[in-house]
Amino acid sequence: MIIVLKPEATEREVDHIIDRLRELGLKSQLSTGQERTIIGVIGDDRILQNQPLTALPGVESVLPILAPWKLVSREFKREATIIDVGSVKIGGKKLAIMAGPCAVERLELTVGIAHDVKAAGATILRGGAYKPRTSPYSFQGLGREGLDYLIEAKKQTGLPVVSEILDTRDIELFLEKADIIQIGARNMQNFELLKEVGAYDKPVLLKRGLSATIKEFLLSAEYIMSRGNRNVMLCERGIRTFETQYRNTLDLAAIPTLKELSIQATRQVDGISWLPCRRRQ
Amino acid sequence: MIIVLKPEATEREVDHIIDRLRELGLKSQLSTGQERTIIGVIGDDRILQNQPLTALPGVESVLPILAPWKLVSREFKREATIIDVGSVKIGGKKLAIMAGPCAVERLELTVGIAHDVKAAGATILRGGAYKPRTSPYSFQGLGREGLDYLIEAKKQTGLPVVSEILDTRDIELFLEKADIIQIGARNMQNFELLKEVGAYDKPVLLKRGLSATIKEFLLSAEYIMSRGNRNVMLCERGIRTFETQYRNTLDLAAIPTLKELSIQATRQVDGISWLPCRRRQ
Amino acid sequence: MIIVLKPEATEREVDHIIDRLRELGLKSQLSTGQERTIIGVIGDDRILQNQPLTALPGVESVLPILAPWKLVSREFKREATIIDVGSVKIGGKKLAIMAGPCAVERLELTVGIAHDVKAAGATILRGGAYKPRTSPYSFQGLGREGLDYLIEAKKQTGLPVVSEILDTRDIELFLEKADIIQIGARNMQNFELLKEVGAYDKPVLLKRGLSATIKEFLLSAEYIMSRGNRNVMLCERGIRTFETQYRNTLDLAAIPTLKELSIQATRQVDGISWLPCRRRQ
Amino acid sequence: MIIVLKPEATEREVDHIIDRLRELGLKSQLSTGQERTIIGVIGDDRILQNQPLTALPGVESVLPILAPWKLVSREFKREATIIDVGSVKIGGKKLAIMAGPCAVERLELTVGIAHDVKAAGATILRGGAYKPRTSPYSFQGLGREGLDYLIEAKKQTGLPVVSEILDTRDIELFLEKADIIQIGARNMQNFELLKEVGAYDKPVLLKRGLSATIKEFLLSAEYIMSRGNRNVMLCERGIRTFETQYRNTLDLAAIPTLKELSIQATRQVDGISWLPCRRRQ
Repeated sequence: MIIVLKPEATEREVDHIIDRLRELGLKSQLSTGQERTIIGVIGDDRILQNQPLTALPGVESVLPILAPWKLVSREFKREATIIDVGSVKIGGKKLAIMAGPCAVERLELTVGIAHDVKAAGATILRGGAYKPRTSPYSFQGLGREGLDYLIEAKKQTGLPVVSEILDTRDIELFLEKADIIQIGARNMQNFELLKEVGAYDKPVLLKRGLSATIKEFLLSAEYIMSRGNRNVMLCERGIRTFETQYRNTLDLAAIPTLKELSIQATRQVDGISWLPCRRRQ
Repeated sequence: MIIVLKPEATEREVDHIIDRLRELGLKSQLSTGQERTIIGVIGDDRILQNQPLTALPGVESVLPILAPWKLVSREFKREATIIDVGSVKIGGKKLAIMAGPCAVERLELTVGIAHDVKAAGATILRGGAYKPRTSPYSFQGLGREGLDYLIEAKKQTGLPVVSEILDTRDIELFLEKADIIQIGARNMQNFELLKEVGAYDKPVLLKRGLSATIKEFLLSAEYIMSRGNRNVMLCERGIRTFETQYRNTLDLAAIPTLKELSIQATRQVDGISWLPCRRRQ
Repeated sequence: MIIVLKPEATEREVDHIIDRLRELGLKSQLSTGQERTIIGVIGDDRILQNQPLTALPGVESVLPILAPWKLVSREFKREATIIDVGSVKIGGKKLAIMAGPCAVERLELTVGIAHDVKAAGATILRGGAYKPRTSPYSFQGLGREGLDYLIEAKKQTGLPVVSEILDTRDIELFLEKADIIQIGARNMQNFELLKEVGAYDKPVLLKRGLSATIKEFLLSAEYIMSRGNRNVMLCERGIRTFETQYRNTLDLAAIPTLKELSIQATRQVDGISWLPCRRRQ
Repeated sequence: MIIVLKPEATEREVDHIIDRLRELGLKSQLSTGQERTIIGVIGDDRILQNQPLTALPGVESVLPILAPWKLVSREFKREATIIDVGSVKIGGKKLAIMAGPCAVERLELTVGIAHDVKAAGATILRGGAYKPRTSPYSFQGLGREGLDYLIEAKKQTGLPVVSEILDTRDIELFLEKADIIQIGARNMQNFELLKEVGAYDKPVLLKRGLSATIKEFLLSAEYIMSRGNRNVMLCERGIRTFETQYRNTLDLAAIPTLKELSIQATRQVDGISWLPCRRRQ
């Protein structure tokens, strides 16, 4: 449910409404837009059915949200989100390109690639320090050391760094060392991890699961946002189909669909990172 | 690679072979079967190509493992695994049935269901204390309290308890309170969680991911076993297809295929738990 | 729409209702069940919205059919259909098993297999004379000659024969030589072929398309029945999924679902024919 | 198998080789390229293994074709095919756009749309006269009359016409009235229809089946070409996946893949026709 406030609503009136919701066991998310200030109501809406909220001072109207997702919905926030990552803006008119090696392997190689991808036009450096590999016998990544290589590459190129987190216990490490935390396709429904990255302001790049529907994808973003973190980017990276000629089937139609349904910052197509990974298979 | 030992190989000869492998940077898994003792070699096998292992005392032959999975492979261990959970044997000729509520909700209800499913023939009680829900606004489970309800139900019925873990940080809790730890479909490729439950002897019920291939499923089991835990059960729970008439498409052919390829303890069909969950949608 | 008649409705009253429907541009399908006689109305139902059909003599009630399929629906006919193929009954309590070679190749081999499958319990002989092969360079079947081999096998064993039709132009040939006409998975939505076999009484075995939904499957059966042929059998033969370990994924849940939704005669699981075909790949 | 001829091979030598192949029960397809003349050998290649074909006058080398498709393969013909449809060239550098109504409904409407799509840049008019509809109760198209409406629209606009054939018995009608014959997704493996359109020179637009692999798609094109018709266009129109947010999932990667593997004339993305059809659902 969304409570739309009157343009002239005072801060005191807003606080009063939020207090009232809290008494009813509901959480509020205040959103101050250019046109309107609204309060998103999180929790079991049905409690409100017999509450005369429209009678409270400052309230203009009370609207249901029809989609199962709320905070990521265009109904809740009309403007596209722009996320600041250092000097790079993600979600605006300029396309942000994130590029780099599938796995971080050696320091010089990592720094070299960083220079190369910067020269090629990328504005953010990606590289896997912790690698989720199908087989336990495949290279699992350099871990903490890999993150340090990325930081060194950042020092030399100025490119902010995105890298994938695999375990809730590594959150402090990623808050310190990464500029964007990546949630990989295999963890798109690792809800404890989503809640964990949702508890901070650090930007999150959420990749679509191998067989995740658009609805599930948006609800995973909602997990992050419902914990308070509004800096979420969605990444279409191909889905699993019957076709075996390529590793994933790029679902291009997902991008306009997500743009229409959500206010997420950006919709990266996982092209650049996808190709090198694929070649290694 | 598998090193098959001579029937008359002595313990000292075995130790010598394992030492030799360690010097080469390889790990060993000793498996003493009724017919044969064999050593599974974990690590980059290619090192062994120029090593005259067959010349070592006690070695009968050295065989490659062709499947990408090793420890779960029938090539590595011919006999089916039987797992003891209290007085219940899983993987033998008698079918073990695990039943109970999708989510644990109230104490009396949980105990009541436990009595019911026992009366109906189930030998293990399942119930979700931590629930991985698509939406952050759905009931997320009672958590620790839910596990305590299951333990109370176990006290009154004698049924061992299986429940799903979602977070590596909860491992101590589950080691203490659950008889079998369940890894749900959405976490089948949450590799950190697989490694964590692999570090103990506690039996693990591994559910197939929504769009996991047979190969990926077995490699996730391999993650657990490669950390030392041999008590792994596989659970076919339906896969995601184009059909929308039902929530999942049961892949019945997976069961004989898994039996042929692997030595896993049991292959539960996720029938009983699946139906109540489905009804709630 | 279904018009349910009063138990005491006379033949004259029934004729009058059918005439009335014809004047409105609608077709009727009379169905005389043990409990009730009903008239299925085919065409654009909306015409009837302002017609006082319930006022006609003999009419008890007028019911909408909610499913997109009508004639195959349990709403239209409650009892399961039993189809007589020579002395074999399909759809009753006794399971009818159809078996035989994927492709008919030589006369003696065909007759030999027929004796074998009869000895093994099959009651109907299947064999492909016209083969729909993925590659134009694969054996395309013996055609008319293959059908003659099947007839010779039928003479010697008494087993009725089922074989697949590929072309509307072969309908006369199949009416003469086959006891059941098979529509293969690749032709499940070859609507001209469905209409053609629908114009006769010859029993039809309709196989589910590789990626056909339950709804599409039933609507293909509806194509046949809407032309007048009520002798339709449904065959679940596995669907296409991401899994590559087996050729098709058997969708077992389709069988109870189809039984619940439709009154089709039988739901063969395409097991016996499927295995030999698969081995050839 | 491909027989590559020497640049100086005479016509008599070529005839001799083709005669020799015919004696062995094999068919030949002569292909005179700018660089080379080659003979494609159709039939069971294994016969040739003990035949000293390289010793025949005029033969430079004998090469196996590794792909299961031959005539559509880049191995067989390096240059892209360009198909002439009236004054429109398909497969060259200029993109040919085919547009028009999903179903042809009324004459004036059809002519009006033809003028509109021409004004919008389309060079070929598409429209369905025979409609393959999931339900027998949906509008099945105007048939022959619909084709006449298209011809009238062609007269007034000069746009060549593409329309879908559903039945082998309609081939004469389509040869007379259509400039391009469309084989729809549901008939991509209606092999009798493929053979029928393969027997003429009339250009064919072959749409990818709902769950057809790239391999199956190319082999269906091979069916047409192996009968002699080299004027085949491939159309990616979206595949069936688990996603329900849109009717089909556009498989964009199919286009470069098909371009790499085959010499087909064009690879239309079924965009324009797909959108209006979708809106009607």
